[in-house]
Amino acid sequence: MSDLLRIAIVGFGEIACRQHVSAIAKTSGAALVAVVDPAKTPSGLPHFRDLTELLRDGPEIDAVALCTPPQVRHVQAAMALAAGKHVLLEKPPGATVSELTPLIAAAHEANRTLFATWHSRYAPAVGPARKLLAGRTISKVTIIWKEDVRVWHPGQTWIFEAGGFGVFDPGINALSILTEILPSQVFVKSAVLDFPANRETPIAAAIELSDANGLPIHAEFDFRQSGPPSWDILCETEAGPVMLSKGGRQLRDGNRLMVDATDEEYPALYRRFVALTSDGKSDVDLAPLRLAADSFMLGRRRFVEAFED
Amino acid sequence: MSDLLRIAIVGFGEIACRQHVSAIAKTSGAALVAVVDPAKTPSGLPHFRDLTELLRDGPEIDAVALCTPPQVRHVQAAMALAAGKHVLLEKPPGATVSELTPLIAAAHEANRTLFATWHSRYAPAVGPARKLLAGRTISKVTIIWKEDVRVWHPGQTWIFEAGGFGVFDPGINALSILTEILPSQVFVKSAVLDFPANRETPIAAAIELSDANGLPIHAEFDFRQSGPPSWDILCETEAGPVMLSKGGRQLRDGNRLMVDATDEEYPALYRRFVALTSDGKSDVDLAPLRLAADSFMLGRRRFVEAFED
Repeated sequence: MSDLLRIAIVGFGEIACRQHVSAIAKTSGAALVAVVDPAKTPSGLPHFRDLTELLRDGPEIDAVALCTPPQVRHVQAAMALAAGKHVLLEKPPGATVSELTPLIAAAHEANRTLFATWHSRYAPAVGPARKLLAGRTISKVTIIWKEDVRVWHPGQTWIFEAGGFGVFDPGINALSILTEILPSQVFVKSAVLDFPANRETPIAAAIELSDANGLPIHAEFDFRQSGPPSWDILCETEAGPVMLSKGGRQLRDGNRLMVDATDEEYPALYRRFVALTSDGKSDVDLAPLRLAADSFMLGRRRFVEAFED
Repeated sequence: MSDLLRIAIVGFGEIACRQHVSAIAKTSGAALVAVVDPAKTPSGLPHFRDLTELLRDGPEIDAVALCTPPQVRHVQAAMALAAGKHVLLEKPPGATVSELTPLIAAAHEANRTLFATWHSRYAPAVGPARKLLAGRTISKVTIIWKEDVRVWHPGQTWIFEAGGFGVFDPGINALSILTEILPSQVFVKSAVLDFPANRETPIAAAIELSDANGLPIHAEFDFRQSGPPSWDILCETEAGPVMLSKGGRQLRDGNRLMVDATDEEYPALYRRFVALTSDGKSDVDLAPLRLAADSFMLGRRRFVEAFED
C-alpha cells in the first residue's frame, strides 16, 4: 500500500461528478486513480465498466467510493471488502438496514475501513448547531425539506424504483443532521407517505418523531417543490429559536446569524475517510437509515397524482 | 420485592387469554396478580382500565407483560420502566425498531429487565433444528407461512391498521425462527407486498433474503389461506432436506422424524423472563423486526382485492 490512498469511484453519476472528484483532488493523502461506470467515461482517468473489471485489469487501488444507487451497493461493497479494499458508501449506505451487518463483519475481519457517509453532517453549520443546542432545552423541532426532484435528481430513475427511497433520499439528509445535532435518540411515532400512482417510492412524507422525553419533532419532505429548495431545521428552545437552514450551511440563534458559510461538505468527508483508513477504523452509524425503514413500516400510504419526468 | 415475580398482564386479548395466563400459572417463581384492559375483565383477578390506574391503585407488582397491540406498547413500556417494573414485550416488540433504543437505555438505567420475546423460538423443535443445522451446509431455505386471518386473528382490527404489521404479524414468527436456526446473519434482498385496497398493511408478502455467502432464502407469507395453516421452514442441505413444520413443533431430517411435540412455547418463555429478572439482565434481539422494516422499505407494493372481515 502506498502512502496515498488510491481511490476508485464506482458509479459516475451526478454526485460523483459534482462532488467526489473535486473533493478527492482537495484531500491531502488521497488520489483518484480510476472510475467505474457502465456508460459514462470521464476523460483522463482509467475507466472500467464494472467493479469486477476494475479489480481484474485496473491499476492498484486501496479504496472504492461507491456512488452507485443504493439497490446495487451491497454486492459491490462485499466484493471490494473481499478484495481487501477500504469502502466508502455514499448515503444512504444501502437499500436495507440489515444488509450492513455482514459488511461490518467483513470489514472487521479484513481489517479494512467501512465508512457509511452522511455528507450533510459535514455542512459547516452542523457542528456549531450541535454545540449550541447541547446547552439548551429544546421544546419542539420542525424539519422542512423540500426540493424539486426534476432539478435536483435529473435522470435518477432509480430513486422512484423499489429500494430507491423516493423523497427519503434527500429526507435522510435531514434525518442525518437531526440525529447529529440532538443530544437524545429519536424514534418515529407516525408517518404519512404519499406515493404517486405510477411509482414505487414516496414523493412526499410527513413524519412525527419523538425522544424519551416526549420532544415533538415534525418533519415534512416533499419532492414537488417549485422554485428554490427549503432545507431547514428549526429548534425552538427556552432561549429562542435556533434555525439551521440551507441544508446546514446557515445557523441563526434568534436573530443573530452565527454561521453563513459556503464550505463544501465532501472535502471534510474525504479527510475523515483518509483518517479512518490510517487508524484502521470503521464508521457506520445506521440511525438515519433505521428512521427511514421505520417510517416505511409504520407509515400510512396515500396515493397522489402520477409523477411524470 | 418478594421472592415471587408478581406480574400484571396489560392487554387482555386473544394471546393473553389463550397463552399468558396459563403459562404464568405453570411458571415457578411467577404469579399473575392483576390484569389491565379497557374492556375485558377476567374473573377472579384485580382489574384496571389502564396502566396509570394499575400503577396508582393496584396491588404491588414487579413486572408487566405487555400484550397490547404494537402501536401503543412503547408508551406503556416507558411508563412501566419509569415506575421501576420489569417489562416483557409480546412480539413484535414495538411498531418501529428505533423506539426500542430509549427503552433499552431506560431499562439499563433503572436496572430492570426488558425482554423482547419471540415466542416461536420456544417451540420444541427449534432448538433441535438449530443444533442439527449447525453441522450442515445449507444450500437453500424456503419459508411458507400461511394462515387464515379470520381464524387466527378474530377481532384484531389493529393488525390491518398502520403499524399493525399485517401478514408480518405471523410472518415475523417465521423470521424469528429463521434468525435463530441459521448460523449466519441474513438480510432482505427484495420483497413484494400485497396490500388490500382498503387496508394499511399487507395481507400477503413474498420476500427474498440472503446471507454473506449468498444463501437463497425465499419466504411467502399469506393471510388468505383457507383450511389448516402452513407454518413450514425447509432447509435443503448436502445431507438432504431438513424440514421444520407446524410452527416449530415438528422436525424431520430427511424422512426421519426427529421431533414431534406439542409442548407449549409460553411456559419456557416465562421461565426465561423469571431468570432474566433474577440475573438483572435484558434480552432484546431486534433482528426479526429489522427484517420486517427492511421489507417495508425495500418492497414493491401491489394492490389486491379489498379485505372485509
